Amino acid sequence: MLYGSTMIKVHATTPRLEKALGRLGIKASTAIQVDNTIYFSGLTGVDLETGQAIPGGTGAQARHTLQIFSDILGDLGMSLDNVVKVNAHLVNLEDFAEWNDVFTEVFEAPYPCRTTVGAPLIVGLIELEITASLEPRR
Amino acid sequence: MLYGSTMIKVHATTPRLEKALGRLGIKASTAIQVDNTIYFSGLTGVDLETGQAIPGGTGAQARHTLQIFSDILGDLGMSLDNVVKVNAHLVNLEDFAEWNDVFTEVFEAPYPCRTTVGAPLIVGLIELEITASLEPRR
Amino acid sequence: MLYGSTMIKVHATTPRLEKALGRLGIKASTAIQVDNTIYFSGLTGVDLETGQAIPGGTGAQARHTLQIFSDILGDLGMSLDNVVKVNAHLVNLEDFAEWNDVFTEVFEAPYPCRTTVGAPLIVGLIELEITASLEPRR
Repeated sequence: MLYGSTMIKVHATTPRLEKALGRLGIKASTAIQVDNTIYFSGLTGVDLETGQAIPGGTGAQARHTLQIFSDILGDLGMSLDNVVKVNAHLVNLEDFAEWNDVFTEVFEAPYPCRTTVGAPLIVGLIELEITASLEPRR
Repeated sequence: MLYGSTMIKVHATTPRLEKALGRLGIKASTAIQVDNTIYFSGLTGVDLETGQAIPGGTGAQARHTLQIFSDILGDLGMSLDNVVKVNAHLVNLEDFAEWNDVFTEVFEAPYPCRTTVGAPLIVGLIELEITASLEPRR
Repeated sequence: MLYGSTMIKVHATTPRLEKALGRLGIKASTAIQVDNTIYFSGLTGVDLETGQAIPGGTGAQARHTLQIFSDILGDLGMSLDNVVKVNAHLVNLEDFAEWNDVFTEVFEAPYPCRTTVGAPLIVGLIELEITASLEPRR
């Protein structure tokens, strides 16, 4: 569902995620564009059918979360190349190297900006929030 | 107090909050607009007279914090309908349902984007930071 | 290294930091501009030669981190006067007053917006992320 005008566009959901988000009871919008910046809701590496964190630890969950963002961006006519900033929250700081490996494998240079801190999470081992630009960074 | 030009507008305080913020010794600006996006300082559910967290737990503090943001947005000619993103930090993750209830009661569809993580806080049980758009999302 | 067009400009590194960031293996971009907003990667108070947190505690590390941001902003033709928002993560919440003192000494009124929460960190005692505007706030 898309709402908005020239200055703002609200993507309450995107086609590929609509069923999953409804099933999970998520009411926050998936993405909202203001000028040429697109803000997103934070996501973690959950199975979109069950709402449970997927197995495999921080690295696997990071990769899965970025795949969901990639799908969302695809629905909006963009890709991970449009991401300009990634805010990461890690339950276990000792998994930073694992997260860093996924970051450098999934994204390509020039990379997005990034901030990583530790935080307890409601579900899963890593929470990612992205900010994107209508024009890709590469 | 308002500073700025066409590209940027700095709201060091807003009329309804000026006295309280001065009394609490808060020097960070309340809100700064760049293009059509308005950035805000994070807030928690404190009594603006005393600086102490209000009683009633996470849900009550969340509601109070959003009321303060609503007042600030009102001073700027906007409302909670202009909020595009909410970043929430919870001291007790088990209070997520309480926070989620307030979020869905106070905002209306289409909802803002949202990220919620756990974090120790200086005051109170929930810290909220909002980002708004000059044009409302609904 | 600068990539981009009129809508987006990617600063993978900036001249004064290029050697240090390469040595530390940091692949995230230093700063990316979308419209008139510039997003930055989070930084902590590390010695750029060694990657180790500098001595002196939270206040000293906060001051050092802001100096690195000041250098980066200088490379981009800006200064700390262009900062519109500071997101701070503190390992020890009892150091808030120390951080607040540095914030009010290093920045000048009208101040940026600010959010401060607690968080475990990979290196150091304080992590700062800034958002800037192409036009200074003062």
